[in-house]
Amino acid sequence: MTIRFALLGAGRIGRVHAAAIAADPDAVLAAVADPVKDAANAVSARFGGELRTIDEIEKASDIDAVVICTPTDTHADLIERFARAGKAIFCEKPVDLSIARVRQCLKTVEETGATLMIGFNRRFDPHFRAVRKAIDDGRIGNVEMVQIVSRDPGPPPADYITSSGGIFRDMTIHDFDMARFLLGEEPDVVFATASVLVDPEIGRLGDFDSASVTLTTASGRHCTISNSRRAVYGYDQRIEVHGSKGAVSAENQRPVAIEIATAEGYTRPPLHDFFMTRYTAAYAAEISAFIEAVKEKKTPSPSGADGLAALLLAEAALKSVAEGRAVRLSEIGI
Amino acid sequence: MTIRFALLGAGRIGRVHAAAIAADPDAVLAAVADPVKDAANAVSARFGGELRTIDEIEKASDIDAVVICTPTDTHADLIERFARAGKAIFCEKPVDLSIARVRQCLKTVEETGATLMIGFNRRFDPHFRAVRKAIDDGRIGNVEMVQIVSRDPGPPPADYITSSGGIFRDMTIHDFDMARFLLGEEPDVVFATASVLVDPEIGRLGDFDSASVTLTTASGRHCTISNSRRAVYGYDQRIEVHGSKGAVSAENQRPVAIEIATAEGYTRPPLHDFFMTRYTAAYAAEISAFIEAVKEKKTPSPSGADGLAALLLAEAALKSVAEGRAVRLSEIGI
Amino acid sequence: MTIRFALLGAGRIGRVHAAAIAADPDAVLAAVADPVKDAANAVSARFGGELRTIDEIEKASDIDAVVICTPTDTHADLIERFARAGKAIFCEKPVDLSIARVRQCLKTVEETGATLMIGFNRRFDPHFRAVRKAIDDGRIGNVEMVQIVSRDPGPPPADYITSSGGIFRDMTIHDFDMARFLLGEEPDVVFATASVLVDPEIGRLGDFDSASVTLTTASGRHCTISNSRRAVYGYDQRIEVHGSKGAVSAENQRPVAIEIATAEGYTRPPLHDFFMTRYTAAYAAEISAFIEAVKEKKTPSPSGADGLAALLLAEAALKSVAEGRAVRLSEIGI
Amino acid sequence: MTIRFALLGAGRIGRVHAAAIAADPDAVLAAVADPVKDAANAVSARFGGELRTIDEIEKASDIDAVVICTPTDTHADLIERFARAGKAIFCEKPVDLSIARVRQCLKTVEETGATLMIGFNRRFDPHFRAVRKAIDDGRIGNVEMVQIVSRDPGPPPADYITSSGGIFRDMTIHDFDMARFLLGEEPDVVFATASVLVDPEIGRLGDFDSASVTLTTASGRHCTISNSRRAVYGYDQRIEVHGSKGAVSAENQRPVAIEIATAEGYTRPPLHDFFMTRYTAAYAAEISAFIEAVKEKKTPSPSGADGLAALLLAEAALKSVAEGRAVRLSEIGI
Repeated sequence: MTIRFALLGAGRIGRVHAAAIAADPDAVLAAVADPVKDAANAVSARFGGELRTIDEIEKASDIDAVVICTPTDTHADLIERFARAGKAIFCEKPVDLSIARVRQCLKTVEETGATLMIGFNRRFDPHFRAVRKAIDDGRIGNVEMVQIVSRDPGPPPADYITSSGGIFRDMTIHDFDMARFLLGEEPDVVFATASVLVDPEIGRLGDFDSASVTLTTASGRHCTISNSRRAVYGYDQRIEVHGSKGAVSAENQRPVAIEIATAEGYTRPPLHDFFMTRYTAAYAAEISAFIEAVKEKKTPSPSGADGLAALLLAEAALKSVAEGRAVRLSEIGI
Repeated sequence: MTIRFALLGAGRIGRVHAAAIAADPDAVLAAVADPVKDAANAVSARFGGELRTIDEIEKASDIDAVVICTPTDTHADLIERFARAGKAIFCEKPVDLSIARVRQCLKTVEETGATLMIGFNRRFDPHFRAVRKAIDDGRIGNVEMVQIVSRDPGPPPADYITSSGGIFRDMTIHDFDMARFLLGEEPDVVFATASVLVDPEIGRLGDFDSASVTLTTASGRHCTISNSRRAVYGYDQRIEVHGSKGAVSAENQRPVAIEIATAEGYTRPPLHDFFMTRYTAAYAAEISAFIEAVKEKKTPSPSGADGLAALLLAEAALKSVAEGRAVRLSEIGI
Repeated sequence: MTIRFALLGAGRIGRVHAAAIAADPDAVLAAVADPVKDAANAVSARFGGELRTIDEIEKASDIDAVVICTPTDTHADLIERFARAGKAIFCEKPVDLSIARVRQCLKTVEETGATLMIGFNRRFDPHFRAVRKAIDDGRIGNVEMVQIVSRDPGPPPADYITSSGGIFRDMTIHDFDMARFLLGEEPDVVFATASVLVDPEIGRLGDFDSASVTLTTASGRHCTISNSRRAVYGYDQRIEVHGSKGAVSAENQRPVAIEIATAEGYTRPPLHDFFMTRYTAAYAAEISAFIEAVKEKKTPSPSGADGLAALLLAEAALKSVAEGRAVRLSEIGI
Repeated sequence: MTIRFALLGAGRIGRVHAAAIAADPDAVLAAVADPVKDAANAVSARFGGELRTIDEIEKASDIDAVVICTPTDTHADLIERFARAGKAIFCEKPVDLSIARVRQCLKTVEETGATLMIGFNRRFDPHFRAVRKAIDDGRIGNVEMVQIVSRDPGPPPADYITSSGGIFRDMTIHDFDMARFLLGEEPDVVFATASVLVDPEIGRLGDFDSASVTLTTASGRHCTISNSRRAVYGYDQRIEVHGSKGAVSAENQRPVAIEIATAEGYTRPPLHDFFMTRYTAAYAAEISAFIEAVKEKKTPSPSGADGLAALLLAEAALKSVAEGRAVRLSEIGI
């Protein structure tokens, strides 16, 4: 059985998913939709798929699954439309910036019984998966303290800041998901500190560029997250989990792993400078996992509920910064 | 000029300082005081110094400096006595567990003009000093985020817990000092989370064994500290400082730096399992710095004020845990 | 312009090249030839190309280039046939085990003006390329001493040993090519030591499983190569170049880059256990380089002459082992 | 029982041993001899010991052991004198540059039953010892291939070159000893290549500055040694042992183990730039081992025979370079 895909949105991340679909022996890219014709044509020429409108795709009988890579504010609507149309749905995070809207959308997904997977790509990084596997295999005993360092090479453009929902909803959200992936227990208290150290413009737009977050679970496990919008040495992505019998960590990946020794010392090249090259393998594995879930009619993971959970943590973090106190997740209502 | 030392307390840490004094060409161990005669004799036989009482040392005209390694609750009294006796004083941290008592004691030191250095040994670790030097040299630009991981190989005995003042005053206090050493700005807000994950007995004694602390400064710099009373892989001591132009870090030191590769993978031996072997060089450098300060009549660093500052952060951390909120240092009175 | 490829030989390595061709936007796999129909069909179904015989491909006007992945003893014949047929040729190493036959074959290539590239994949490994680039950029000054460690996870089956030409012609040959790639000067003296430490059966077949080789150049540069047919910790592939102003090295790549710390120490997983997963990126880059050479009508590198040069070094190494002395390359005639 | 030492030669390395003696609780430095009075006085003032002549020390009844740190050409004579005088002897390598003289000297040692230890300090490096222990513990199975990299920060002065016996007798000799320490079997064939790449003056003096050596044992084990007189990145000292069940390695030690990340990459400081700081712990452990052997009346290791064995390998290496062939150790006569 070959899964026939339609790609909604042929931009940067859409192209990554198109490549993954084209490379998977169990899938084919059958349709591409994007109002920007050049983008759609480029993807189609390289990875296959005829150009169609979203309406056409919604009604098409030859499409099994859609990959939603359109702007964030269209995600919830598209999920609902394609859930009703009976297509399996892979959607880039987040479902929506409004928690109420997310809940409503997930209700539709539940009612229609649709298959929905949310694009938290990092869960599919082979190194982070191996960290999780080491935990599952009991190598470090009970998880006690998780540490996540996640720093972007440089801040996004101002217009992205204004539409992204801010650092917690757009950047830390990946770390919130990773924390949930690794803690083995739901965090129920959030304490966050945030400041503007990188670019005052980010502050003027009402956002932060540097954040430290501590999550705690009911049994007392901790997760600390350290975020910065700028690391001149590259895309800094590390996790470490300390447990009762040991610890497991995943260090940064490097595009070029040489070392040059001179009279000044030993130097290795900088890290990846772009999330797409850092997470190439993760993006491919993510789509493969979605294809497998669709083929085997399993509930994919991360699910819509995972998308909501990470968003609730972001909301709690914002409230914590505003009020200077630890915020219980139960305080975050609709 | 040779500085003539008296050692007060010939226990484990006293012996470390005695060795450092004996090895320094500018110092001599002239007297040792300890109510446990065997301990005093052992130090004297190995590193020199005649056995004397504290009273004798106080009045002795041939003693320039004392090293106080007695139990914590005697520190403040001894500092005051020897400040009045005109001796230079090196005292193991803390001055006292009571902030009021510390302030009172430091007032005496100030009035007498005595030379007082507090034993925050980690500042003298060659690797951590090199981190600080890299910052001072402008290698990483403005400091933005400091991360400290500090985990003991195993929890202390119960009776230590009850007298130590708890995890923040006894263990984290070193990290508070390191944060101050590296942040380049005083922390003014403390948020701490603590739990009991290692040993329920520690909880029954009213203490914690796992803690995550976030410090922030007026300009928005962050420092996160991660503490555990038990790391089965050894004495885990790492620092990392992220700045506007780069980052600098000091990894764990290893007593045996080999790697064995087998079909199961590549294995390096565990870390040091004891703070004294981990910080051997730091202890020696610390005493050398004190000797130099005495010889050159300079104010030593870290000073009594540094001891107080770290203790205030510990106090704020305790309050933060109790109240579930960020605590300003200015809230911590006498 | 799209280069139309025919694949000759659809076995393990043929499949790797087919994938690389299919993934390159400038190439298409148009034909597949293999007497084993299942293998040919499998490649065709996955990466395209219709099934044809070698004769058909030789005469086909729609084929620009061939990739030769057939058994070693057919390489020279096929190169000559396709050189005369005017196709660009990518051939897996070696051209032939007989130096006389290689010379004859390369003569035909020269006479026909055919484009020929030999598959020394390691030159295209991104890390080894970066080592070479560091040298070319003058980062380490003049090259003085090269060290290559190259160990297989386990010995090949006995029937491979008997047909491969032995360890120097089949395994070390890659290191000879790498030495030439890095030394910046042709080696002219070879000293080799070889023994049977891994498997006595290999010795009974007249081959060795462990070898140490020293190459020297006219100006006195050295290259040492260390080979073993068995490294239980995985496919061990390291290079290091020491020069007048520094050194540059490429460490082993790891499929899973995590580290687990327990009371027994810090453990990282073993290395890749297969050359194809270790050199995935190299194989893709190699085919891209060939495609680019064909498109731009450039002489590809490594060339047939490079293939010959490495084979001459292997021949000299064999002679050195037999005679217990340093052998000059000039001693190796036809 | 306290071993009373006399130090013969109060230069650079003499001072290192004096410090080790002074720091050992079982030893005391009782006498110092050096024709350079300032040097003798300096050592005496810092580590104890009265100034005496060699003649006085030879006849003294209060001296148990001597440490010979005088120029190489006096070693054999002094060993013989103190062997006859009934003192335990620690002598810096080599016993003599002439093999005949060494044999003669060792005969005297044997006849007198004197205790003689030769200063191959690297055997006492804690990391190299741990490598050996891993082998002894069976962690890597049977030893198959040893690799030693040993590079000096910079070439010695010309007058040292002329008196040292050349690179093999003065520098590689340490690696020959290390090879014997690790191979688990005596090397019986030596092949060496040497050239002048660092400084033409060294060549004019008849010596080499770059060398590659392969040693083989009767059962076919290999050891490769890579030497250079100049590594701008510091004192490069690495060993690696590959065996049937795994491998074990010791990486370089670093005086300052920090890493600085900037836009240009990740940089660690250079290595130690001096053998004395690199091998501080080794020198102390070496003297402790000697003291223990003297106290317990055991034959110390490395012995005079070890000194001779390394010298024979150096002689064979020289012959191999001269004749361009593998040289059997049995060819090296008196």
